[in-house]
This record gives sequence, C-alpha cells and structure tokens, in this order.
Amino acid sequence: MTNIPENTLDPVELTKALINHPSVTPVDAGAMDRVQQTLESLGFACERLKFGEIENLYARRGTASPNLCFAGHTDVVPEGALDGWRSDPFAATIENGVLTGRGAVDMKGGIAAWIAAVSRFEQVPGSLSFLITGDEEGEALDGTKKVVEHLRQTGEVIDHCIVGEPTSSAVLGDMIKVGRRGSINATITVTGKQGHVAYPQRALNPIPVLVAIMAELDGRVLDEGYERFLPSNLEITTFDVANKTTNLIPQTATGRINIRFNPTHSGASLQAWIEEVCARQAERSGAAIEVKAAISGEAFLTEAGPFVDVIQDAIRDVLKVEADPSTTGGTSDARFIRALCPVVEFGLVGQTMHQVNEATPVQDLYDLTDAYAALIAKYFKVFA
Amino acid sequence: MTNIPENTLDPVELTKALINHPSVTPVDAGAMDRVQQTLESLGFACERLKFGEIENLYARRGTASPNLCFAGHTDVVPEGALDGWRSDPFAATIENGVLTGRGAVDMKGGIAAWIAAVSRFEQVPGSLSFLITGDEEGEALDGTKKVVEHLRQTGEVIDHCIVGEPTSSAVLGDMIKVGRRGSINATITVTGKQGHVAYPQRALNPIPVLVAIMAELDGRVLDEGYERFLPSNLEITTFDVANKTTNLIPQTATGRINIRFNPTHSGASLQAWIEEVCARQAERSGAAIEVKAAISGEAFLTEAGPFVDVIQDAIRDVLKVEADPSTTGGTSDARFIRALCPVVEFGLVGQTMHQVNEATPVQDLYDLTDAYAALIAKYFKVFA
Repeated sequence: MTNIPENTLDPVELTKALINHPSVTPVDAGAMDRVQQTLESLGFACERLKFGEIENLYARRGTASPNLCFAGHTDVVPEGALDGWRSDPFAATIENGVLTGRGAVDMKGGIAAWIAAVSRFEQVPGSLSFLITGDEEGEALDGTKKVVEHLRQTGEVIDHCIVGEPTSSAVLGDMIKVGRRGSINATITVTGKQGHVAYPQRALNPIPVLVAIMAELDGRVLDEGYERFLPSNLEITTFDVANKTTNLIPQTATGRINIRFNPTHSGASLQAWIEEVCARQAERSGAAIEVKAAISGEAFLTEAGPFVDVIQDAIRDVLKVEADPSTTGGTSDARFIRALCPVVEFGLVGQTMHQVNEATPVQDLYDLTDAYAALIAKYFKVFA
Repeated sequence: MTNIPENTLDPVELTKALINHPSVTPVDAGAMDRVQQTLESLGFACERLKFGEIENLYARRGTASPNLCFAGHTDVVPEGALDGWRSDPFAATIENGVLTGRGAVDMKGGIAAWIAAVSRFEQVPGSLSFLITGDEEGEALDGTKKVVEHLRQTGEVIDHCIVGEPTSSAVLGDMIKVGRRGSINATITVTGKQGHVAYPQRALNPIPVLVAIMAELDGRVLDEGYERFLPSNLEITTFDVANKTTNLIPQTATGRINIRFNPTHSGASLQAWIEEVCARQAERSGAAIEVKAAISGEAFLTEAGPFVDVIQDAIRDVLKVEADPSTTGGTSDARFIRALCPVVEFGLVGQTMHQVNEATPVQDLYDLTDAYAALIAKYFKVFA
C-alpha cells in the first residue's frame, strides 16, 4: 500500500468514480463532466469539444513551454455477457485487493492515475495538458482525430504526449509502446466471363487471375524490418467464388488482403503497389479488376532519445523493471497524436482489457501513479 | 420426302410413339416396353435388365459374328418451363415439317431411325443388337455401365457399336464423335490455424497454401493435344474461404478443379499428380490438406480405320456431307461401351437438346434412317 501524499487525489477512488459512469461508446453518461470537474479543481482551464454526439475535452494548466500532454479515453467497450462477471461491471467492486469493472485498465484507471500524479504538483516549469476523448473504442471519427485537427488549427503546441493505454504485458511497466504498425485492407474483385469447363476458349476464368495476383502480392518480401519493428507482413484474409457447379467456369472471384506495415511503407505506397500488380494482371489476362483499398492507420515510430529515456528511467526507478519499447499490437489514438508531437504509450497491465471481469490490482493503480509522478518530474528536469 | 420402303417401319411414327411416353429419368412410363415390342416384332430376342429402379434392354437378332450394336437411351431430361413450349412436350406435334417434343433429338428420334433402318433388313451376314437404357440423363449408375458389366460377365461379344446421340452440329451428318475427353473433379481443402492478422506467427494461413497449389496445378501444360484431341485443360472452378473479418486469418480454404483430358492421361494418373502436388505443399507449409477426387469418365478414342470409314462413307453417300470425326463436348454412355468394342456416336442435329421446344425436322428422321441403313449395309460388306 502506497501512502497517498496529503492533499492529493486517490487514484483508486477516482477510478471507481469513473467506472460508475457506464460510458459505453458513444454514450458519455457523465464521465467527461467528472473528468472536467476534477481537472478544474486542480486549476486546469478546460475546453469541451463536441463533435457529432461525442464528448471531447482539452485541458491545460500553465502557458509556458514545454507542454506535456496526457491523452486518454473515457469510453469503454460493451460489458458483454453479464452473467460472466463476478460483480456488476459498472459497480467497480474491490475484492482481495483487485478492482473489477469495465474500464478498470482500458483506461479509466490510467486517466485516474495520471490525474492523481498531477495533483502532487502545485506547478511545473512549463505546462501540463489533457486530451480526453469519448470515441476511441468506436469509429474514432469524432474523437482524438478531430481534436488534433482543432489543436493544429488553433496553433496549440504540445511538445510531448503520453497515452495511458494499458501497454504493460505481464507486470506493470514491463512494456511501453513507442510506435505502431500501419494497417491497410484491400478487396480485389476479378470479373471474367462465365462458361462451360468443356469450352474454356469461350470463357475467361477469373480464378487463375486472382490466384496469380495473390501469389505475387504474397510472394513479395516487403522489408526486413525497420528499427524496432518486425518485417511488414501481408495476409490473404479471404478468397471467394461460391460456385457450386462442377462444370461451370464462374464469372467473378473476390479476395481480400491485410498488410501490417512498418514505417518503411505508407498506406499510399502499398495501395499503389497493389493497384499496379492488379493493372498488370488485368492487361495480361483481359479480365476486369477492381481494387478497393482502406488505410486504417499509418505506421509511426517515436525514435529512441531523451523523451523515451525519461519514461524508461521513471519506470526503472519506481517500478524496478526494464520497459521494453515495443511497436507490436493493434492501433490506438497515438496514430493521430503523432502528427502533433512525439508520443509514447504507457499504462496498466492489459491482460483483461475488452474481456469480462476486466480488473486491475489496486496496488498497480498506486504504483502507476507513483511512476507517472516520477515521469512528470523527470520530464521537466530534462525539457524545461 | 423419302419413300418409306414397303413393309418397313416409319421412323416418324415410331419417334412420336416414344415421345408420348413421358420417360423423364428415372421414370420409364412404358417407353422400354414400346421399344421391346417393336424389336420383338422384328425378330429380336430381348433381355430386360432392371438395375435399381432403372429399366434396361439388350436385344439381338442373329447369332453369327460380327455383332453390330446400336446403343441409346429412352430417358429424357425434364421438360422445364411448360409455358416456354409451343406445344405439349410429350404430344410430339408436327407443324411445318418440324416434330417438336422432349426427346425428339436426344434421343428417341435416333432410336426410331435405327429401328426403322433395321426393319429394312430381313437378315444380315452377322448379328444386329440393341443396348437401350433408361438412365443416361441421370446418375448413369444403373444404366449402360451395369449392362456393359453384365455383358462382359456373360461373355456376350459386340464387335462394333454406334451410339445414336445427336452429334450433328449444323446439318445432319456434319459431325460424328469418335472419342471423348475424360473428366475429373478434385476438391482440395487446406486446414491451417486461425489467428489475428497482427500476430501471424501464431497462426497458419491456409489461403497462400491453396493459392500455391492452384498456381502449380493451373501452371502445368498437361499436353499439346493427342491425335484428334485438343490439349487437356484444367479449370479452377471454385475457391472459397468466406471470412468476413478483416483482421482474422481463417482456418480453412477450399478449392475445386475440373480437368478435361485426352488419352495422354488417365483419371488415376491425374489424381496421383494432384495428390502429389498437395502432399508436397502440405509438407512445405505444415497445413493439413485433403483431396477428394471423382473421375467422371476416362478419355477414349476410336482410331481412324475401316469402322470409322464405313460411317463416313455412308454419310457421304446418303447425306452428301463430310462428317467431321470429332472428340469435343461432354461425356456420353460411349465412355462405358468403349470397354467392350470400338464405338462411334452419330445422330441427329443436337442444337435443341435439353432445351424447351426440342425439335427435329421430320425430313432429318427419314434421312437419318437412310444413312443408318446404308451404314448397316456397308458395315457387313466390310466386316462380315
């Protein structure tokens, strides 16, 4: 048990209070007001940004540089099967030192810990800010993406950003995320000419054309990796014809690929490559080929340097573990914030995220608060 | 209009009588009895062979060699959409010199013409026989295949066989079939291990394995053709995964191929090749691969020589056209008979077969009877 410094906020009480608001995307249920009121009590100037039906908040204390921002989301994924939960998912029950509730680790606990850490600083030689959204688990169209656009338009400067996602793997602090791979999906439809297998000269079979395209796409070594990133990887995720007739050459074949790519590539460069391969096979075969590509996120990397050092040092000092600066896993709102400033993700142990009985040891909330406080102190020592 | 020789049967009347029996596979509707009674009236000894629910007939007149057999089927495909027919499909209506009805060309007209031709011969220096089945258009399991097995077991010798399928293309006699390609279908199922696209090392994607198999199978030049045959041809007829989730590596991929092959290959040699390719890809990839092959028919060819000459000569003499000895098109019961003796298919113009308003000019029935009669006469001159 950590001793909570006098006149500072208790991260466990704040986590419980936030979980009590059942803010399943896109519903806010008062969660954003709770964050705002707490920050205002700590002297933050709050700007509410509502896009569509989504509540967003940008808050700042101080006007000087550097500006260290914390980014997070108050929305949570649905509770799922209620009878799988050991307690009401929005009651935030503590039993045997474990706090159970939807959002405990992803990521109301992270928001609470950072606010509690901030409450320990009456002032810093610079500014502290918060970028909190209610749309991270959903479409993410009216959340951080739009707040970032707004901040760029108004000339707001953020120097560095910590995202409080539950990045820890087995124990608190063992992993931070310094980058993420990009992701692109492409659906390829080949249209030939239907006919009888006994008379192939009167037909144009689209399947061998799509087989050739898939073999070429899948056969390319995209790269050998990039700094901390694994090599980019392409997976064929489906291939469909649905022809039940044995003596029929079908009209159409459709396939889909997904590429998880490191900063060697961009979504646009990969889309252009896919389109080039398909155009060449269309030319060769005479079939009509349509490509529909959707870029879900670009790859990014916050390079090793003083900012990453500050985070790793704070973790080492407080939590006594060495944080692995990873680039694995899916996407997060860091993909939007990286357009503003260097961004690193660091938070609770994510093992139970999105599951029933999402939970965190209470001690982790106190320890994370201590680590965040050490991080803030070191940050301004290095960058102020 | 042909003058029907006195005391011989009229092929048109007999065709109409046969069409009046609505013998849609597997129903016989009295069609086989009609054939049997007619043949008995011409002095044939008839053996009825019932396999399952299917009526079959072997009839022979004479005991001497050579034995020239005519093979055909009394069953027809369903009439289809009734409102598309200009007259009742089983009424055998004649209008403007055209006889319309289900089975007119495929192949009650052919049976009638051969019987009418036979009725012109009181005797031949050898034997004439008939192999008639009621199961050619259906599964073909209890039809000619089983009759041929029975004839082999009983030691019955057939020297040559004419199958009365509607082989003519544009005008009567312009095409005969001296062989058919074989056909094999193979369904290939690749089972990998499902997983998330972001963690491909924990999964085994079956799609690239099936893509590699299909590319290898489709990429082989099977042969350059064989005598009168086109090159053997492989078509990929389907490829299915049905994975709707963009970030999921699926468990299973299934594809199917069809090969139409000339006598360079056998069904067994192609099946062994497909299985070898799949076994190698299973070894390489670690995926489990299942192959289900079904050989629908072996390729065969009745070589150029006196038997084919007899048929072409009869056609040239009577019909004044040059018959193309073709090997194109789908399978027929000739695939079973070829195990007994050389077999050639020759019959009416097939353009309307299996369609609504199946029809033949009445004149073609008379002309085909004349050609068949000339063929029988020439045959015994050459082979007796």
